[in-house]
Amino acid sequence: MHILVTNDDGVQAPGLLALAQAMRPLGQVTVFAPDRNWSASGHVKTLERPIRVTETMLADGTTAYVSDGAPSDCVALPLLGFVDKVDLVVSGINPFSNIGHDVTYSGTVTAAMEAVIAGVPGIAFSLASQDKPANVPADYGPAGEIARTVVKNVLEKGITEGVVLNVNIPYLSVENIKGFVVTRQGLRVYRDALDRRVDPRGRPYYWIGGEAPTGVNEEGTDVGALAAGCVSITPLQLDLTNYKSLEVMKSWEWT
Amino acid sequence: MHILVTNDDGVQAPGLLALAQAMRPLGQVTVFAPDRNWSASGHVKTLERPIRVTETMLADGTTAYVSDGAPSDCVALPLLGFVDKVDLVVSGINPFSNIGHDVTYSGTVTAAMEAVIAGVPGIAFSLASQDKPANVPADYGPAGEIARTVVKNVLEKGITEGVVLNVNIPYLSVENIKGFVVTRQGLRVYRDALDRRVDPRGRPYYWIGGEAPTGVNEEGTDVGALAAGCVSITPLQLDLTNYKSLEVMKSWEWT
Repeated sequence: MHILVTNDDGVQAPGLLALAQAMRPLGQVTVFAPDRNWSASGHVKTLERPIRVTETMLADGTTAYVSDGAPSDCVALPLLGFVDKVDLVVSGINPFSNIGHDVTYSGTVTAAMEAVIAGVPGIAFSLASQDKPANVPADYGPAGEIARTVVKNVLEKGITEGVVLNVNIPYLSVENIKGFVVTRQGLRVYRDALDRRVDPRGRPYYWIGGEAPTGVNEEGTDVGALAAGCVSITPLQLDLTNYKSLEVMKSWEWT
Repeated sequence: MHILVTNDDGVQAPGLLALAQAMRPLGQVTVFAPDRNWSASGHVKTLERPIRVTETMLADGTTAYVSDGAPSDCVALPLLGFVDKVDLVVSGINPFSNIGHDVTYSGTVTAAMEAVIAGVPGIAFSLASQDKPANVPADYGPAGEIARTVVKNVLEKGITEGVVLNVNIPYLSVENIKGFVVTRQGLRVYRDALDRRVDPRGRPYYWIGGEAPTGVNEEGTDVGALAAGCVSITPLQLDLTNYKSLEVMKSWEWT
């Protein structure tokens, strides 16, 4: 079992180290991650420029590959043959939850999508550490344990081809986590606002500001599971067709 | 009817001008586009830095807003209040088709997704000009006419809330186009290969190389419609849940 570990926060992120350490008991682990933070950068394939890859060392002394490509490139290059055959790609642990509409923005989730497009199972892990006090560093220990449990179960039971698993972990100790729930993608409520400012030279610039997104707390969804203190596991697919609309629109006359 | 026109190829792209001109007979048009090419950059939300917006002029002398943000930012800022209320967002015309798995990578499609997430209808237009001879510039005239026909029909018949339309147009004259087909998302066949090279200083670098992607030419899909010389209109949704897997996985014991 050869497991590729990547993320979208960059090779120095503590969530990457936690995920790599959690995977080591399950097989051979290769870490291949971006050299910088790519959060909210979506599904990127770098075609217009070449990509550099170097070796670096994680905080626990193990070796990792680091690249100036995007998270999806850090999946594509290994799967195209930069390393030996990969059996599973895991991405994360992202410091914030990736729920609802977050999934197409999320480098963590799109890295797992990249694996599945290439025919290799992909699982994204995110920790809802936005719920911790702001002045203490996040503890990724419990999330690492949970990630290992999820991967162990997936390896035993098998994952449907073409399905990406999007796993969100509440910021709780393992004993306080209420269980594992398989969920559907819920609804995010974005509260972005346009924040116009003026620079020291009198020229305007704009922030996408506003408040942090919330979500519709509904049972059966990723939002609802996290709110209930459960690990949320959402099977995602890459076929985005809305089949109901397809049937309705088939009757349209195009004039 | 206030229509926002954007793209992922940058404000100077001929496809943007063609789309803006095609929309003008249908209502008030605002053009708001990135200052550079963002192809294959996916769904980006720029939160870590502020965004500049300036006014520029398109090749036909009309005014456009240009920003150093990503395509999705060029939708977010206007919809957050940078301009008057927007009724419809159209994105394109991308010079190459966006079919099958392309949809999550495509800045053209994710710009339309950004609109739908904000509650405004969004339509992405792409022209399969990869099928034209390489030594002549693409003619976006027919695609502009097709885009106007699609938008007119959508405005008349109404589009389901939450649905993004992904429109792909064959590179043919209007009279040679075989019709309009509502399709499901097909299967792309990527033929990427790892291309290792060595720089003048002896250090390796890597291209994602290989051949251009093909697709599984199946009736009822976007790939099949384009191959048959038809305009492909695929209704996409933002709920990526795989409901079949969800039911299967619900019976799993997580141990």
